[in-house]
Amino acid sequence: MTDDITTLAQLKEATAKFARERDWEQFHAPKNLSMAIAAEVGELMEHFLWVSADESSTLCLNKDKRGKIEEELADIIMFSLQFANMAKIDVASAISAKIVKNAAKYPVSKAKGRSEKYTEL
Amino acid sequence: MTDDITTLAQLKEATAKFARERDWEQFHAPKNLSMAIAAEVGELMEHFLWVSADESSTLCLNKDKRGKIEEELADIIMFSLQFANMAKIDVASAISAKIVKNAAKYPVSKAKGRSEKYTEL
Amino acid sequence: MTDDITTLAQLKEATAKFARERDWEQFHAPKNLSMAIAAEVGELMEHFLWVSADESSTLCLNKDKRGKIEEELADIIMFSLQFANMAKIDVASAISAKIVKNAAKYPVSKAKGRSEKYTEL
Amino acid sequence: MTDDITTLAQLKEATAKFARERDWEQFHAPKNLSMAIAAEVGELMEHFLWVSADESSTLCLNKDKRGKIEEELADIIMFSLQFANMAKIDVASAISAKIVKNAAKYPVSKAKGRSEKYTEL
Repeated sequence: MTDDITTLAQLKEATAKFARERDWEQFHAPKNLSMAIAAEVGELMEHFLWVSADESSTLCLNKDKRGKIEEELADIIMFSLQFANMAKIDVASAISAKIVKNAAKYPVSKAKGRSEKYTEL
Repeated sequence: MTDDITTLAQLKEATAKFARERDWEQFHAPKNLSMAIAAEVGELMEHFLWVSADESSTLCLNKDKRGKIEEELADIIMFSLQFANMAKIDVASAISAKIVKNAAKYPVSKAKGRSEKYTEL
Repeated sequence: MTDDITTLAQLKEATAKFARERDWEQFHAPKNLSMAIAAEVGELMEHFLWVSADESSTLCLNKDKRGKIEEELADIIMFSLQFANMAKIDVASAISAKIVKNAAKYPVSKAKGRSEKYTEL
Repeated sequence: MTDDITTLAQLKEATAKFARERDWEQFHAPKNLSMAIAAEVGELMEHFLWVSADESSTLCLNKDKRGKIEEELADIIMFSLQFANMAKIDVASAISAKIVKNAAKYPVSKAKGRSEKYTEL
């Protein structure tokens, strides 16, 4: 499986199958999954606590760290996809809709090169 | 875009394009993106703080809430995909590899119907 | 040190001293400390992911778990106090002020026994 | 109330009283409170997502932002103290014990001026 040839539906199904085989769907309420995503993001952040933004880019290239960082990101996305599975959310549709909404909040003309929240632009 | 016909690569590119058009890649170091994912997960959790697991499933069907929950999930996944873009991580490969690793930690025979951590099975 | 006889100032100083002795204040910018708090909350949540609210109360009494849970909570509060140290925030004042503000948002007459957000009461 | 003259017990009681008056202890299981702390940390982090560590220090002095940052920190510590209330944890004791343990992991001689995790020192 690589990003070029894998659909969201296929990746969601791989995640669902893992849970289903273990009879874990009983634990996968949205509340619990939202906590699980948060716990995994905590592990991802742990790599970056005390380094600068630039150093965090370098760290992702470090051969000792890269594997772990990939695993934390995989965990975050897997739990997010399982959330989508359990709540029957179409991820690609939700993201397209959010991009349209964000584009209205952050028009290129106002937001270009600026990191302020839209309420402060 | 729907999950059936959208590849990870396409969704990553939609996310990258939004950032690129706004010249935001300068802000998107892994450290910063990991925080952004965490902040968005905080917003998702906020819907579920005081309800039970079962009630959180029902809440996701509530027509007033569903749209917001979809948006929070979209934000989490978008920042996660942008993390993958910036760190050049192939998401589908990372997830496949993690599923193999998790399957070894949680063999069906031991983990079926149980929520303990693998160290406690 | 016990809660009955320890002031916030004393606990903040114990935390500051630990960092100062190790010359760690250079790492303790508010941004980094906010991430550190989040990473520690992730570890606390990990104990409660798949259990119900009631089971989480029982878990805190479990002798194998209790020590760990106390440590995670200690980490969260220490980093929060160090945030207060670095940003020169008086914690007791900030909390008193917030309680006054929350009391206006959540008057007893409206909020009693209800978990809705004030915008939905 | 200021940090110089307020004990942990007093601040814990102020927090407990607010919840008790609203009959909110029924919602305050450790699981739910751990999520609430995480959601509040998310709001704190939101202020710092796209700025450098140095800029985050400056931001805490900004008169428009400072009040909000104090409120987010107050929320985090209040929910943490309420967690301690509900789980009957003595915060000052837990922190003293954790400081002793951390001092063993991070002896001044090895850790001075270094931000690595103890496993990497």
